[in-house]
Amino acid sequence: MGSIAVVGSVAYDSVETPFGKVTEVLGGAATYFSIAAGYFTDVRLVAAVGNDFRQQDVSLLESRNIDLAGLETLPGKTFRWTGKYGYDLNDCQTLDTQLNVLADFRPNLPEHYRTSEYLFLGNFDPGLQRQVLLQVRQAKLVACDTMNYWIQEHFPALLETLKGVGILLINDAETRQLSREPNLIRAAEKILDWGPQILVVKRGEYGALMFRREAGGGLDIFGAPAYPLADVLDPTGAGDTFAGGFMGYLAGTGRSDRHALRQAVIFGSVMASFTVEGFSLDRLKEVTLTEIEMRYRELQRMTRFEDFAQPREKTLS
Amino acid sequence: MGSIAVVGSVAYDSVETPFGKVTEVLGGAATYFSIAAGYFTDVRLVAAVGNDFRQQDVSLLESRNIDLAGLETLPGKTFRWTGKYGYDLNDCQTLDTQLNVLADFRPNLPEHYRTSEYLFLGNFDPGLQRQVLLQVRQAKLVACDTMNYWIQEHFPALLETLKGVGILLINDAETRQLSREPNLIRAAEKILDWGPQILVVKRGEYGALMFRREAGGGLDIFGAPAYPLADVLDPTGAGDTFAGGFMGYLAGTGRSDRHALRQAVIFGSVMASFTVEGFSLDRLKEVTLTEIEMRYRELQRMTRFEDFAQPREKTLS
Repeated sequence: MGSIAVVGSVAYDSVETPFGKVTEVLGGAATYFSIAAGYFTDVRLVAAVGNDFRQQDVSLLESRNIDLAGLETLPGKTFRWTGKYGYDLNDCQTLDTQLNVLADFRPNLPEHYRTSEYLFLGNFDPGLQRQVLLQVRQAKLVACDTMNYWIQEHFPALLETLKGVGILLINDAETRQLSREPNLIRAAEKILDWGPQILVVKRGEYGALMFRREAGGGLDIFGAPAYPLADVLDPTGAGDTFAGGFMGYLAGTGRSDRHALRQAVIFGSVMASFTVEGFSLDRLKEVTLTEIEMRYRELQRMTRFEDFAQPREKTLS
Repeated sequence: MGSIAVVGSVAYDSVETPFGKVTEVLGGAATYFSIAAGYFTDVRLVAAVGNDFRQQDVSLLESRNIDLAGLETLPGKTFRWTGKYGYDLNDCQTLDTQLNVLADFRPNLPEHYRTSEYLFLGNFDPGLQRQVLLQVRQAKLVACDTMNYWIQEHFPALLETLKGVGILLINDAETRQLSREPNLIRAAEKILDWGPQILVVKRGEYGALMFRREAGGGLDIFGAPAYPLADVLDPTGAGDTFAGGFMGYLAGTGRSDRHALRQAVIFGSVMASFTVEGFSLDRLKEVTLTEIEMRYRELQRMTRFEDFAQPREKTLS
């Protein structure tokens, strides 16, 4: 089992959806990632919080075997994000972002983090992502996230970072924007020429697609639906949870072959399905291994189909 | 092998996409359906065209073992549809619709059609759909389509029709509108209480979901991605082609069990993938059985994943 270091945001979120409203609850990409990955392996968190960060939130993270040596408390306030969703939960409106202590945060990994075999670079400045990469030189597998702002404003720096990354995990809009290609296969072909061997495209309620460059140069594609839910309360953190389940499974098993990668996508979907069933980490943090396994098996049943009976012979010439 | 009767539109379409433009080419839901279903079984077409309908188009349909006894030529012009797509090919703009001969068409099935075991009711007036139903009383399996206009303006009539329908095939926006429920599982639960045992939700480039009421009352869900394509030229007819592949496979095999239904969804996806690779029926009509089988197997490879290695035991209590 390999340890995974994750660098990203720890936040206080205020979120409104048609199903409720919460104020200044624990959130942030690195938080969702760590809690999800913690079900599969040991996690080493790198993030900055302000001196308003609550002891109960520290305790939650600690209780999950998440190493907090890299969690710096800086003078000032913790990062704040405020967002709102309508009935179309795919459509999120950011109402307010206050970087606070993240504005000047420069990740400096504790010595024992630097031998991590797995590394996840959250969605932040590509230049800083590269500085983190240089601190974990013998990482076996590096994955990263990014977003529209970095694609648009820091494209050359982002390309430079991608050269050192094995797996890029982004959503479909980001995939199209990054590649400037509306078609996802063409987009994947392009992005996989820039460094990553694997592109995982997160598509929210539509599931995920994984593109992988094969040894022979071909493109291996894996498609998985999202785990279907009757009650989605709050999609915040779904993508970060997906990444945590995905990378956590790979690190936990020490595998990164084709089969393990596909299983990892399913675990990503499964973990994300818990996150969206509650606000903040309410549901995700209560999940049991049995529940995780049950949803994995349900996704297996949901996607299986048999060989076909022959279409008729007589048709056409 | 059971014959399938299909009632719907035969049209001349004018379509513009970022990849080209065609004027007054053969189209219409029943056309796409028939050509796709014709790869699997015998098709009996019911539609009206004007006296401008071209002999070459009659010949194409005839060459596919499609029974044209129910294709009426009425005085006037064939139905015309004009549409435009942007780079987001999910987003279609209808520029013009001219019903022409369809305005007063009342389907009256030839005597030998009335013993068809399979029936597909295209997207038209729910009252007329019911009249067709009454003409094919011993049909083993009836599927139907509908659209926003009928849902909004003829809701009670549509509900009445659904009582006599086994399979409803619609897209996700229609599913939400019909059920007045943003969540697809809840939408499916509701619609499956209205008559159909099966709801197939077509989601374009995101694939399809099938919901099926099980004998015990549970909900069986099947999810399949769309067949991924690097070149999509024109999405027109994709949904109708899906329905044709789906129903054609069921009729061709004479099966409607859980396994066959899942295979039928895959054949629907496969057939639709050919349609969108060309304008009009350019690509669909050239398809070979070998190509169909290849894409079926590719979708199988694309969606398979193995049982998981155990998440760690030690985590949490």
